[in-house]
Amino acid sequence: MTKGIIHYEVGEQIDVYLLVKSVTKGIASNGKPFLTLILQDKTGEIEAKLWDASLDDENTYVPQSIVKVLGDISNYRGRTQLKIRNIRPANASDHVRVADFLEVAPMKQEEMMEKLTQYIFEMKNPNIQRITRYLLKKYENKFLEYPAATKNHHEFISGLAYHVVSMLDLAKAIVKLYPSLDADLLYAGIILHDLGKVIELSGPVSATYTLEGNLLGHISIMVSEISKAAEHLGISGEEVIILQHLVLSHHGKAEWGSPKPPMVKEAEILHYIDNLDAKMNMMDRALEKVKPGEFTERIFALDNRSFYKPTFHR
Amino acid sequence: MTKGIIHYEVGEQIDVYLLVKSVTKGIASNGKPFLTLILQDKTGEIEAKLWDASLDDENTYVPQSIVKVLGDISNYRGRTQLKIRNIRPANASDHVRVADFLEVAPMKQEEMMEKLTQYIFEMKNPNIQRITRYLLKKYENKFLEYPAATKNHHEFISGLAYHVVSMLDLAKAIVKLYPSLDADLLYAGIILHDLGKVIELSGPVSATYTLEGNLLGHISIMVSEISKAAEHLGISGEEVIILQHLVLSHHGKAEWGSPKPPMVKEAEILHYIDNLDAKMNMMDRALEKVKPGEFTERIFALDNRSFYKPTFHR
Amino acid sequence: MTKGIIHYEVGEQIDVYLLVKSVTKGIASNGKPFLTLILQDKTGEIEAKLWDASLDDENTYVPQSIVKVLGDISNYRGRTQLKIRNIRPANASDHVRVADFLEVAPMKQEEMMEKLTQYIFEMKNPNIQRITRYLLKKYENKFLEYPAATKNHHEFISGLAYHVVSMLDLAKAIVKLYPSLDADLLYAGIILHDLGKVIELSGPVSATYTLEGNLLGHISIMVSEISKAAEHLGISGEEVIILQHLVLSHHGKAEWGSPKPPMVKEAEILHYIDNLDAKMNMMDRALEKVKPGEFTERIFALDNRSFYKPTFHR
Amino acid sequence: MTKGIIHYEVGEQIDVYLLVKSVTKGIASNGKPFLTLILQDKTGEIEAKLWDASLDDENTYVPQSIVKVLGDISNYRGRTQLKIRNIRPANASDHVRVADFLEVAPMKQEEMMEKLTQYIFEMKNPNIQRITRYLLKKYENKFLEYPAATKNHHEFISGLAYHVVSMLDLAKAIVKLYPSLDADLLYAGIILHDLGKVIELSGPVSATYTLEGNLLGHISIMVSEISKAAEHLGISGEEVIILQHLVLSHHGKAEWGSPKPPMVKEAEILHYIDNLDAKMNMMDRALEKVKPGEFTERIFALDNRSFYKPTFHR
Amino acid sequence: MTKGIIHYEVGEQIDVYLLVKSVTKGIASNGKPFLTLILQDKTGEIEAKLWDASLDDENTYVPQSIVKVLGDISNYRGRTQLKIRNIRPANASDHVRVADFLEVAPMKQEEMMEKLTQYIFEMKNPNIQRITRYLLKKYENKFLEYPAATKNHHEFISGLAYHVVSMLDLAKAIVKLYPSLDADLLYAGIILHDLGKVIELSGPVSATYTLEGNLLGHISIMVSEISKAAEHLGISGEEVIILQHLVLSHHGKAEWGSPKPPMVKEAEILHYIDNLDAKMNMMDRALEKVKPGEFTERIFALDNRSFYKPTFHR
Amino acid sequence: MTKGIIHYEVGEQIDVYLLVKSVTKGIASNGKPFLTLILQDKTGEIEAKLWDASLDDENTYVPQSIVKVLGDISNYRGRTQLKIRNIRPANASDHVRVADFLEVAPMKQEEMMEKLTQYIFEMKNPNIQRITRYLLKKYENKFLEYPAATKNHHEFISGLAYHVVSMLDLAKAIVKLYPSLDADLLYAGIILHDLGKVIELSGPVSATYTLEGNLLGHISIMVSEISKAAEHLGISGEEVIILQHLVLSHHGKAEWGSPKPPMVKEAEILHYIDNLDAKMNMMDRALEKVKPGEFTERIFALDNRSFYKPTFHR
Repeated sequence: MTKGIIHYEVGEQIDVYLLVKSVTKGIASNGKPFLTLILQDKTGEIEAKLWDASLDDENTYVPQSIVKVLGDISNYRGRTQLKIRNIRPANASDHVRVADFLEVAPMKQEEMMEKLTQYIFEMKNPNIQRITRYLLKKYENKFLEYPAATKNHHEFISGLAYHVVSMLDLAKAIVKLYPSLDADLLYAGIILHDLGKVIELSGPVSATYTLEGNLLGHISIMVSEISKAAEHLGISGEEVIILQHLVLSHHGKAEWGSPKPPMVKEAEILHYIDNLDAKMNMMDRALEKVKPGEFTERIFALDNRSFYKPTFHR
Repeated sequence: MTKGIIHYEVGEQIDVYLLVKSVTKGIASNGKPFLTLILQDKTGEIEAKLWDASLDDENTYVPQSIVKVLGDISNYRGRTQLKIRNIRPANASDHVRVADFLEVAPMKQEEMMEKLTQYIFEMKNPNIQRITRYLLKKYENKFLEYPAATKNHHEFISGLAYHVVSMLDLAKAIVKLYPSLDADLLYAGIILHDLGKVIELSGPVSATYTLEGNLLGHISIMVSEISKAAEHLGISGEEVIILQHLVLSHHGKAEWGSPKPPMVKEAEILHYIDNLDAKMNMMDRALEKVKPGEFTERIFALDNRSFYKPTFHR
Repeated sequence: MTKGIIHYEVGEQIDVYLLVKSVTKGIASNGKPFLTLILQDKTGEIEAKLWDASLDDENTYVPQSIVKVLGDISNYRGRTQLKIRNIRPANASDHVRVADFLEVAPMKQEEMMEKLTQYIFEMKNPNIQRITRYLLKKYENKFLEYPAATKNHHEFISGLAYHVVSMLDLAKAIVKLYPSLDADLLYAGIILHDLGKVIELSGPVSATYTLEGNLLGHISIMVSEISKAAEHLGISGEEVIILQHLVLSHHGKAEWGSPKPPMVKEAEILHYIDNLDAKMNMMDRALEKVKPGEFTERIFALDNRSFYKPTFHR
Repeated sequence: MTKGIIHYEVGEQIDVYLLVKSVTKGIASNGKPFLTLILQDKTGEIEAKLWDASLDDENTYVPQSIVKVLGDISNYRGRTQLKIRNIRPANASDHVRVADFLEVAPMKQEEMMEKLTQYIFEMKNPNIQRITRYLLKKYENKFLEYPAATKNHHEFISGLAYHVVSMLDLAKAIVKLYPSLDADLLYAGIILHDLGKVIELSGPVSATYTLEGNLLGHISIMVSEISKAAEHLGISGEEVIILQHLVLSHHGKAEWGSPKPPMVKEAEILHYIDNLDAKMNMMDRALEKVKPGEFTERIFALDNRSFYKPTFHR
Repeated sequence: MTKGIIHYEVGEQIDVYLLVKSVTKGIASNGKPFLTLILQDKTGEIEAKLWDASLDDENTYVPQSIVKVLGDISNYRGRTQLKIRNIRPANASDHVRVADFLEVAPMKQEEMMEKLTQYIFEMKNPNIQRITRYLLKKYENKFLEYPAATKNHHEFISGLAYHVVSMLDLAKAIVKLYPSLDADLLYAGIILHDLGKVIELSGPVSATYTLEGNLLGHISIMVSEISKAAEHLGISGEEVIILQHLVLSHHGKAEWGSPKPPMVKEAEILHYIDNLDAKMNMMDRALEKVKPGEFTERIFALDNRSFYKPTFHR
Repeated sequence: MTKGIIHYEVGEQIDVYLLVKSVTKGIASNGKPFLTLILQDKTGEIEAKLWDASLDDENTYVPQSIVKVLGDISNYRGRTQLKIRNIRPANASDHVRVADFLEVAPMKQEEMMEKLTQYIFEMKNPNIQRITRYLLKKYENKFLEYPAATKNHHEFISGLAYHVVSMLDLAKAIVKLYPSLDADLLYAGIILHDLGKVIELSGPVSATYTLEGNLLGHISIMVSEISKAAEHLGISGEEVIILQHLVLSHHGKAEWGSPKPPMVKEAEILHYIDNLDAKMNMMDRALEKVKPGEFTERIFALDNRSFYKPTFHR
C-alpha cells in the first residue's frame, strides 16, 4: 500500500514500519554514542543515524527487529539518508512480520520446484538424470530458500532457485534455435552449477561465507558432491566427468574462479546463459531506481559501469 | 555426391574437382621451383605441393581456377596434405562452376531479406525504424553477399546476413523471456552492428581489409554512417546517439575494439547475442570435423581452446 | 594584488573575495545542517565549512556567486581548509565579476585564432586544408572558449585552443628536425584531434559530460564530423580516411580509447606531441605549488606519481 | 661406460644403443618419405633423420624399440642432430632392455616409501594421519612410478615420489627454523598435493593427459578424493576442509590453476616448498648441460629465462 | 607485567604508559580543535582522540613523548579505539624510557653480529669474502639498528639484521639439501641484498624514505656500492658482476623493482629465501593477533589475503 | 652507383659485391650440406642459399669476407631471396673494403663530437657539467663508434652518438618552447642515458650482449659509473642523485627496465625525447622500403604495427 523505501525522494516525510538489517555503534565528536541503522523493506534499504543513543536504545534496535519510524528523507554525500524524528520498536498489536520486509523471488517455491521436476523428467540420458535428481533432492530445501549470492545479483530469498529456473527457460529457447546442443547436459549443468552455494553460504537471509565457502568455494564443493553422488549411485560413465567439468568451468576463466575453462560446447553455453541472466538481473534492479534520462549508480560487478535509461523508454 | 575434401582420411585416394584458392611459389632444395596450392571445395580446404613446376604450370594454376586432381591424402606435420599424382585444369566440358566450390550460408538470400524486412516492419519507434531501413537499403546487395569476417566465424558467402538473422531470432526469444528489453532498439542494433563490414572488407570471396577497414574499422565506419543517415533523414532525437552507441560498444571492451563499453541495457545484450552466435558457429564447425571421444583443434578466437566431443553424443 | 588562494600557508588569516564553485549540504553530529563550500580564484580552490547553516544561507551561497570571506587557513587530514570567521555575499558596490575568479589560458583568443589561421593558410594540400578550415569555422566559438578537459590538464577557459596552439608550435619545431614528416597532415590532425570536445563537454566552465560525450566520446564524434564535412565539401580522396585515422588513433592504444593504434607516421607523432604537451602542463601546475626540495602531490593522470623539485632549481 | 647422448659434441662419431621415443613420417622435397626419430638414453634425447625410409623401416623403427646406430653429431639450426650412417634394430643377443634407457629418480622406491611411512607415522593429529595414510595406500603403486609432470620438472620414472620426498625433507628443515608451523598439516599437504597426477596422467612413461586430467585437473581430482576418503573413514573435522584447501591452493593463484589462493599459513609454505624444489630441479638439469661461462637454453617454465654458470664454479 | 595494548578487548579499561607515535590535528564539527594520537607500546598501536585540545595540549603531546593514560577500549568502524578519560605527560619520577615502547628484534645485536662474522669467516672464495666483509664493516652500525622496511615485514628495531640472520640459517639448511648451490655466493648475496636500506631509509625508528631512497631505491644504491667497493679493493673478477646481479635481481621481476630477473641459480634461490622469511614474519604477526577459528585482517603485502587459524591449532 | 640491395625487385638480376654478415650450415634433404648466407651492403641485407657447399666453400665464405655474386632476386615465403648463379670471393684487385658495406650514421664523428662539446660547454651548473664531461671523455672512443642497439633503432656504426645528437637538438627546441625546463639537466641526462651501452654491448659491428650487459644492463652500469665519477671528482651535491635518477628512469616503467619511474620533470621529458627519436628512426627506415599506398612490414618494437604510406605522399 505504502510505497517502497527506495522510492521516496529527498524532502519527503515518511511514517512507516521498517526492518533493522544491521546496526553499528559510533562515537560522535561530542563524545556521545550514536547508532547507524540500516533499515529495509522489500524494495531496498536506507541508512539512518540515531544520535545520543542510550544503552537502552542499543538493546532495543537490534538486527531483525522491526521499527516504526517517523522522519525525513535527506541527502548525505549524494546518497539518501533518513533523518529520524521519532522511532519505536514494533509490538504485537502492529501486526507486522519479518517476512513482510524481506525481498523474495517473484515466483512461488512450489511453482519453481514443479518446473525443475519437469526439466529433469524430460532428460533422456539416465546417468545425467539420476545424478541431477539425486543432488537436487539431497539439498532441495536449502536450494529453494537460499539467495544466489551475498550481493550483486539475485541476492534475495529463493534467488538461487529463481536464477536457475530463469536460466533453464533461456536454455530451452537456445536449444530450439541451435539443435546441436545436448539439452540433457545443459539442463543438468544449469541445475547443479550453483548448488554448492547451499554449503558455501550461511543461510537464506544476510548470508555470509562459511569456512568451506571461504577455503574451498561452491565450485570445488559441488565437484566433490558429484563425485560422491556418482559413487553412491554406482555411475561411472563419462557423463560424471563432463558434469563435473560443466560445474568446474562455469565461471569461464581461471581468474574468475574456474581452474579449467569450458572445453565442452554445453559448458561454454552454460557460462553464457549464467552471465546473461545475472547481468540482466543486475541491470534491471539498477535501472528501476532511476528515471528515463538518468544514469544508474555504478555497478561493481558490471566492471563498475553506469547504465543510461533512454528518454524514449516510456 | 562425392564427399567433401575435409572428410577424407590419410591413405585415401581422391579424384575430384577443386577450386584453387591461393598459390605460392617456392624453390626446392634441388633448386627447382614448386607451387604450394591451397585447394578448396564447399567443406573446406587442403594444401598440395606441385613439384618441378614449369612456367606453364604457374600460368595455369591461378587463384579462382578449377582443377581436376588425382592424388593421395597424406600427413605432413600433423596436418593432412594432398600428394598430387596428376593434375589438369578443368575445361568447359567438365561442367563445373566456381560457385560450386564456395561455402554459402544455409539460407537463401531472399529468405533472409524477407525476415529482415519483417523485423524492421514490426518496429514501433519511427526514428529507429527509418534509420535502420535506410541503411540496410543503402548497402543491401553487399550485405546479402559478404561474409561476417575474413576468418573465425561465418566466413562464407552471405555469412554476414546469416549471422544477423540468427542473432535476430535469438534476440526475439530473449525479449520474450525478459520483456523489459526494448525490442526495436535491440533489433536495430543487431541489423546495423556489423554492417560496416561491407566497407571494411574487400568483397564476398577471399576477403581482405580495405584501407578504411585497416585504418578506421567497421565500428567507426558505421557510427559515421548512422550520423550521416540521421542528417539525411532529418532525425535528431536521442535514438541517433543510442543507436550509434550500440554499434560503438558491441565489442564490449576497449581492448576488443569498442572505445566505450556498453552503457545501455540493449547494448550489453547485443554484445552477448553477438558473442553467443559467433561462438556457437565456431564450435559447431570445429566439432563437426572430429569424432565423439576426440578434441577439436585449438580455436584461436576462443582463447586457443580445444573442445571435447563426448562419447555419449550419438 | 592579493596573492592567490593556493599560496596561503596554514596559520595565515585571509580577507578576500572568492567565487563559490560548488556547495554540498551535510548534517553535523549535533543534527544541524552545514554547508561544504568549494571556493576558488584564478590560482585554484579551497574547501570551507559553514556550520549551522540556515535556509537563508543555503539560498545565498550558491554556485557561481561571489563571497567576501574572513577566515583562517587550517589543516585537515593533510589538506588546507578554510575556517570561516565571517562570510557575506558580494554586492554591486564590491565591483567584482565572475570572470575575475576563473583561470584562463595565458594567451588571448584573438592571438590564438590568428596563429591557427596562419597554420591553416600555409597548408599546401587543398583537401586537408579545406576540411580543417571548414570544421574549425563550424565550431570556432566553442573551440576558443572550452577547456581541454574536465580535469587533469588544461582544465581552464580556452584551455582547448591553448593546448592546440602549443602543440602546433611544438610540431613546427619537430617538422624542422625531421623533414620527412607531412606538415599539413600533422597540423590538421592537431587542430582536429580534440575538437569533438566541444560536443563531448557541457561548456567552458565547470564542464561535465554530455550524453554524446558519455556514450560516444569526442573521438567518435569527430570521426563522424570529418565524414560529414567531406561529404558536404565533395571531397573523397584518401586524405579523408587518413585525417579520420589521425583523430581516431590519437589516444595511442585501444585501452586508452583509440579503437585503432596509430598506423601512419604523423598519427604516431601526433599522439606523442599531445602527450608531451599535456604532461608538461600537468607537471608544471603541480610543481608550481611546491618549493625546491619538496615532492608534488600525486598526479593521477601521470600514473599517480609525485614529482620532485630539485633544490638546485633556483 | 659409454657417455650419455647429450654429452657428445658436434663432429663426434657415435656407435651406441638408443631407445626410439617417437617417430614422425614426412615427405622430402624429392617426393620420398623420411622418418624423424627422437632417440633417447638416460641422459636425454637427440633428433635423427632417416632419409628414403622404406615401408619396412616404418614398421621396424617404432616407439619403445631399441636401435643400434652409427652416425655423426651435427648441428642443425643451433640444435645438435644425429646424422645416421647405419642403423639396425637391437636383437636378443644385444642384451639391452628398455629400462636401461629411461631416466629414473636417484632414489629407490623402497627407500622413498620408507621415508614416507616414517613421516606419516610421526604425525600426531589422527584425522590428518588417517586420511593421508588411506589415500597414499589407495594409490601407492602408481604414486611410486609416475613422473611429477609430462615436462618441465621431475619428468622421469618415480619423479612424483622423489619430488614429494625432497619436499618433505625441505619442510622438516623449515619447521625446525620456524616452529610455529603445524608439521602434520604441512607434511600431509606435501604428500597429497600432487597425488591426483596418478589420475591426471596416463602412465609412468611418455605420459599424456587423461580425459579427467584435461577436463578436471589433478587439483580438483584430489579435492574430491579427500572428500570421499573422509566420508569413507567417517572423519568430519575441520582437518578435512583444511587439507582440501592445501591441495586446492597449492598453485598459489587463480591464473596458475588454484581457484582459491593459500589462506592458511601451511598452505602458503607448501606452495613455496613446491616451487623451490621444482625450480631447483629445472635449473640443475639445464645447468648440467652447459660449461662454466655459458648460459643454459631458455627454460619455458622459468619465465623463459636462461641461467648463467659462473666461471668460478669449478 | 601489564599486557600489551593490542591484547585489550572492547569494553576493558586501561591505565598504562604509552609512547606517542604520531599526532594529527583536526577541527570537530563544533568548530573546536582535537588531536588524533597514535599511541604505541612494544606490541603494537592504538588510535585515540583528544577532544577540545588546547594549544597547551598540542605542545605537550608530541611524537616520541610518553604519556600516562586512563581510558576505555571502544570500537569505531570495526577497529579498536581508545576513549581517553584522563591523560598526562610522563615525568622523571615515572621511570619510563622511550626504548621500553619500541619493538626490537628477538635477538641481541652482538649475537647477530657474531653469526654474521662466522658466516663470512667460512667463505672460501676470497673475492666474495672481501667485498662482503668490507661493505658490512662500512655500514655495520646502521645495519644492526635499522628495520628491514617501513611497513609490511620486520619493521622493528634491528629488523634488517634479524631478517638477514634468519635468511642465512634458512640458506644453510637449503645448501645442505641441495649441495650444488654455491654457499659463498648465496650467503654473500643474503648479507648484501638489503644493505642499501641503510641509505634508502631515514633511521631505525619511524623510518621514511630519503631522497636517494625515493629516486634510486636500495637496489640501485647497493649495486653502485659493490662497484665502488670492488674498485677500492682492487677486485675485478666475475664475482663482482655476479654479486651485483644477485642484489639487482632479488625482487625477482621487473614489475617488483628488479630491472633484471634472476639469471644465476643462487640469485633465484636468494629471491625465494627472502620471500619465504618475509612472508613467514608477516603471517606470524597477523596470526598472533587472532584466536583459533578466526581470520586475520587482510595483509596488503600478501595480495590482500586474510589467513585462517585452524581450530585444531592448540 | 649501383643501387642498394634492398631496392631490387623480384625478377631482377644482380651482379654486385656484398659483405658476408653471417653463415649457417644446413643439411639438405638429399643429404648434402648447404650454406645460408646473409649478405649485406649499406642499405640492408638479403638471404642467399649456396647449395651443395664443399668444405672449401665453408672455409671461403666466412663472416666479414666480401663476395662478388651474380644471381636472381626471387621470393620465398613472402621475403626476397637471392638465388645464386655464380659466386666468388673478392680479391685485392677488386678494390673493395669492408667499411664500404657497413651502414654508418649520416653525420661525421668529428661533427658529432663538436656538437656534444658545445652542449657541455654551455652548461651553467658546474657539478652537472663536470660529471658529464668526465664520463663522455672516459668512454669517448667507443661512444663515437657503437650502435645505439643490437636491433630495432640506430643499429649502425656511430648510431649511439647520432641518436644522442638528434635528441639534444630536439631537446633544445623543446626547452625553447617550455622554458621552465632545466636545460643543463636535460642535456646531461641525454648524453649519459645510453652511455652504458659501450659496456653492455660487445662492439661497433654485429654487437652482442656482454656478461655485464646480460646480468646488469646498461642502466645499472651507468648508475654505478656516475656514482664512481662523482666520488672521483669529489662532487656530492643533489645533482649526483638526480643525474643517476635520470639515467635510471629513462625507460619510463619498471616493466620496461627502469626500477623507478621518472619523478623529476626532466626525467619524464628525457624519456619522451628518447622514445620520439627512436620511433622516428624506426618508422623512417621501414617506410623507405615501401611505396606510397603500401604498408610496411610489422615493426616488433612498435607493438608489432605496420605503417601505411599515404598515396598523396609524393
